[in-house]
Amino acid sequence: MDKVTVLFFPDNLVANVEPGTSVLRAATLAGVELKSNCGGDGTCGRCLVKVKDGNVRLKSTGAVSQKAKQAGMVLACQTMVEGNVVIDVPKDSRLDEHQVLLDEKEVLVEQDEGLAEGYAIKPVCRKVKLSLTEPTLTENVSDWNRLQAALRSELDCGEIHIALPVLRELAETLRAGDWDVTVTVAQLNGCAEVVHLEPGHSDRKSFGLAVDIGTTTVVVYLIDLDSGLTLGKKGTYNKQARYGDDVITRMIHASDKKGGLQDLHKAVIDTINQLIDEVLEQSQASGDDVHMAMVAGNSTMTHLFLGLTPKYIRLEPYIPLAAETPPVRAEELGLNINPTAFVATFASVASYVGGDIVSGTLVTNMAQSDEITLFIDIGTNGEMVLGNRDWLMTAACSAGPAFEGGGITFGMRAMKGAIEYVEIDADTYEVKVSTIGKMKPMGICGSGLIDCLAKLREVGLIDRAGKIQTDLDTPRIRQGDDGWEFVLVFGEETECNKDIIITENDIKNLLRAKGAVYAGIRSMLKAVQLDEEVIEKVLIAGGFGNFINIRDAISIGLLPDLPPEKYRFIGNSSVKGARLSLLSQDAYHEAQELGKKMTYLELSVGNDFMDEFMSALFIPHTDMTLFPSVTNLK
Amino acid sequence: MDKVTVLFFPDNLVANVEPGTSVLRAATLAGVELKSNCGGDGTCGRCLVKVKDGNVRLKSTGAVSQKAKQAGMVLACQTMVEGNVVIDVPKDSRLDEHQVLLDEKEVLVEQDEGLAEGYAIKPVCRKVKLSLTEPTLTENVSDWNRLQAALRSELDCGEIHIALPVLRELAETLRAGDWDVTVTVAQLNGCAEVVHLEPGHSDRKSFGLAVDIGTTTVVVYLIDLDSGLTLGKKGTYNKQARYGDDVITRMIHASDKKGGLQDLHKAVIDTINQLIDEVLEQSQASGDDVHMAMVAGNSTMTHLFLGLTPKYIRLEPYIPLAAETPPVRAEELGLNINPTAFVATFASVASYVGGDIVSGTLVTNMAQSDEITLFIDIGTNGEMVLGNRDWLMTAACSAGPAFEGGGITFGMRAMKGAIEYVEIDADTYEVKVSTIGKMKPMGICGSGLIDCLAKLREVGLIDRAGKIQTDLDTPRIRQGDDGWEFVLVFGEETECNKDIIITENDIKNLLRAKGAVYAGIRSMLKAVQLDEEVIEKVLIAGGFGNFINIRDAISIGLLPDLPPEKYRFIGNSSVKGARLSLLSQDAYHEAQELGKKMTYLELSVGNDFMDEFMSALFIPHTDMTLFPSVTNLK
Repeated sequence: MDKVTVLFFPDNLVANVEPGTSVLRAATLAGVELKSNCGGDGTCGRCLVKVKDGNVRLKSTGAVSQKAKQAGMVLACQTMVEGNVVIDVPKDSRLDEHQVLLDEKEVLVEQDEGLAEGYAIKPVCRKVKLSLTEPTLTENVSDWNRLQAALRSELDCGEIHIALPVLRELAETLRAGDWDVTVTVAQLNGCAEVVHLEPGHSDRKSFGLAVDIGTTTVVVYLIDLDSGLTLGKKGTYNKQARYGDDVITRMIHASDKKGGLQDLHKAVIDTINQLIDEVLEQSQASGDDVHMAMVAGNSTMTHLFLGLTPKYIRLEPYIPLAAETPPVRAEELGLNINPTAFVATFASVASYVGGDIVSGTLVTNMAQSDEITLFIDIGTNGEMVLGNRDWLMTAACSAGPAFEGGGITFGMRAMKGAIEYVEIDADTYEVKVSTIGKMKPMGICGSGLIDCLAKLREVGLIDRAGKIQTDLDTPRIRQGDDGWEFVLVFGEETECNKDIIITENDIKNLLRAKGAVYAGIRSMLKAVQLDEEVIEKVLIAGGFGNFINIRDAISIGLLPDLPPEKYRFIGNSSVKGARLSLLSQDAYHEAQELGKKMTYLELSVGNDFMDEFMSALFIPHTDMTLFPSVTNLK
Repeated sequence: MDKVTVLFFPDNLVANVEPGTSVLRAATLAGVELKSNCGGDGTCGRCLVKVKDGNVRLKSTGAVSQKAKQAGMVLACQTMVEGNVVIDVPKDSRLDEHQVLLDEKEVLVEQDEGLAEGYAIKPVCRKVKLSLTEPTLTENVSDWNRLQAALRSELDCGEIHIALPVLRELAETLRAGDWDVTVTVAQLNGCAEVVHLEPGHSDRKSFGLAVDIGTTTVVVYLIDLDSGLTLGKKGTYNKQARYGDDVITRMIHASDKKGGLQDLHKAVIDTINQLIDEVLEQSQASGDDVHMAMVAGNSTMTHLFLGLTPKYIRLEPYIPLAAETPPVRAEELGLNINPTAFVATFASVASYVGGDIVSGTLVTNMAQSDEITLFIDIGTNGEMVLGNRDWLMTAACSAGPAFEGGGITFGMRAMKGAIEYVEIDADTYEVKVSTIGKMKPMGICGSGLIDCLAKLREVGLIDRAGKIQTDLDTPRIRQGDDGWEFVLVFGEETECNKDIIITENDIKNLLRAKGAVYAGIRSMLKAVQLDEEVIEKVLIAGGFGNFINIRDAISIGLLPDLPPEKYRFIGNSSVKGARLSLLSQDAYHEAQELGKKMTYLELSVGNDFMDEFMSALFIPHTDMTLFPSVTNLK
């Protein structure tokens, strides 16, 4: 069948596709990124576009409001092209490219002091300058034997490996440098791997990448492997979002759609490559000088990064393909760095406690401390680690995508235009909001949702169960298509000219998400038969955690009611652990041990978690004695 | 510049090349294989062709006889195309594709008994059938951990490795077989490498290849890794011959010509792939089922096979890039077998004593015996090992290409039409020859040359120094362009309608070759201060050795004058050692140890070898006491 052309406006980007292809797929191919929370199932209603010209076939009208329909909007995922078409993509439907706020720019002050103490800089990948003795007729071992002998006298290592493409350079490199040679060596586990060769004693920099692959956000740090300095940091959305917001939708796409695994693998590699290009450009560095990448991510992200199917992580009994994976070469994955660079990932503890948590736990130092510490990483999932130097327990709860904007009518991720802070007047119920980028509001991000929920409850607009108090006298409370709703911002003040509302359904979803996290914490405490009070320190991490308001988070019952001084923000602990492991062989080794030390608590087994979860669906909880500081609310 | 077309007749094969390209290069590109001993330097005069149509430019007339010039012949290597041309390729100039005689077809009976005794079959690569326990919520380690645990209970191994492409298949394979799985594992050095996965308990065969890469000839055996049976054997010329006959010419091509290394790498891979295709077709087997290749070759051949530069093997102090090389995957080399198949090579002892000699020494069992054994592998080079279980010494001498037909006016390799056997009437000097394939003679191969030299001396046609006795009354002795010559076969009886002659110059080259081998043996004996008589066994190996006539070889002074019962032919010991190593982990391990055990004697250091060589330039030797059985010649 002849291909047809799909032109996207106002980008002027084109995709050539088979007739019958969805506009959403064509947009992906053309490089136009559309919002899509449901992964193309027609249920989330985010990928609205307008067909300006040409023939299309509607598979279903899907979740499109009457108003949008009247404006000629259709869902891109449900619209199949029949011939050449022209598509108009409104601002609202775009997955904005934007700079994720990195830890320097965190709203709440991040403390790095005391993190990852006691590791001397001894990078897992570094340059070794060698002066070999020139061979003679009587001392005539091969170049490779000669190099190995010299390396062994410099390094404490077992076997020394080399890949064929690097070995092929050896003879000329040694002679070009007159038997002086600079060898870039990666040392992960006793063995050494020669990843690069340069003639003479080279002063070229060598760089490493610390990478955190979050379900939502991907962050790349560029590290100078000599000085240990972080030269640049870049973050952006995981391009996998075009296949669905949450891990589960993506796992389904990878497992059930033809080429789905490849789609997701390519999307995350593209994301990382974009960040690599940016961070290299910013630092005026060359990708050829990047010889190592240390990658942390949850199990599913690590699987997709390596092109391994995550299918059985999703299905009971939740088995990852590999918990530990061997280091691979950059060219095997198509990363835009030196093709022979070594790429290592962190081992995961279990299907839902991944290398990002191991990496984060490394940074917390909790495994070296007597203090009982609770470490919570709230991203799209909520993962937690409890313990000290004697024991470590870990669990994961599916908080769901609510805190990332999924399943919430006006939910959105923490991008420009997202409401991140809400105030409500206790008498007039008038609302003041502030948005990221100080723009007109377009939706509400995670921190805004927590704030909103806390404030709604604080002024009595909702009850403990999250029900809107419909008898209150304000035009902001009204009946909508989806039942009762509260108007946060009226259309005239919004970017999208629509009223930004929060519905009872939205509140229910938020309660489920916060209930899951809290129930997870409670279940862990129960499993070790300890009370909350024994927790001496709570470390909150994650992209989401950067924006969290502790007081509000406690008052809605997301976090335990402990004195605020016990709480601490540590930013993106996953990428920090990756950086630390890149810079310290001991730290990398410790991270590998950590993975083995942690006991995984499967929350889906037994009734404890379900009981805790049911009790945590209220604000803050059915058992108010657990939240003494929030009992006095009206 | 626009490309031009070069059409080769009668093949009807075409190459499209830039103007200025030589006809020899165009022939290579078109797949027409021309003889070329000098590697395109215009000196050997083998690549004669006729320009039927089109414009060419002659770089030089080169070594073309007056007669050939009159017949319109030019050297393909010295003829540059200027426009579209048509080239006629005569039979004489073709490097015939032919079946190299494999050991079954050896002229002299080959004895396999006692070779490689005492190794039980335990292949370095084999299928392991496992039944894994199905994971549960409480026993939920990853698929890869599960597989490793099961493998460890079956195998005695250290670390278990797996390549990313194989790992990617793991989850679905385990479940498709309902937790029964067949794992193909390669075990070379303690570690195990998973190279292939199949669901269930598979009865598919798994195959291995034993490969010997000779400078002249390449041989491939297809081995059933379950039964240990050899299913097929194929041999052919090394396609590298188009870049020169001998190792040195090829090393120069690889080192000095742009893309030369790639040319030679590709040529040997193409040669092996052709043999793989043939041997698989013969056995009705699929390349996908070949999971391991064990490759033996001299140092230069091993370097070129892996794409490593052999440049510094040629230059003093003769340093190989790598004596031991790590196993690589078939896809890294482009071999036509399973892309994830493991490819291992034998470690070499020194630049001129390669893995083929290590492999051969393994087969001889000499390192397990009390008897002092001399093992000689005569190919394009002559390599030898002397010793027993207590000590092993090895040396190499550059015999030169004479025994392979190089540097001899009518020399040719052992292909159809080559004179392999000569009789000369002591009174009439009439000559009877027999050729390979019982065809009209075209030239003389190595065994024919030895025979010829022995018979010329026997009937007194030449003296001890190789001088032709010009006073004898026979029209076969005459003055030629190159000095005195002897006519073996007159033109009317030859395929090429030319008189097949042997010149005094040819004889000089042969004496140099035989002198080098004998001097090597003497130098080794001197180095360990032993006499020839202590040698209890002489094992002759090599493609050349297959055709050698021991009596003649002794009478010209190529081999020591020992009782014939001490001699034994063992055929292609290199490929046999590769086969043995494929089938026995212990044998492979022993081969690796052997490489370390051997003491290399560098013959170019000191004067011993030169003195021995000068004395060995006579027939059989200046010191006739060394050859008591040949002293009585008239």
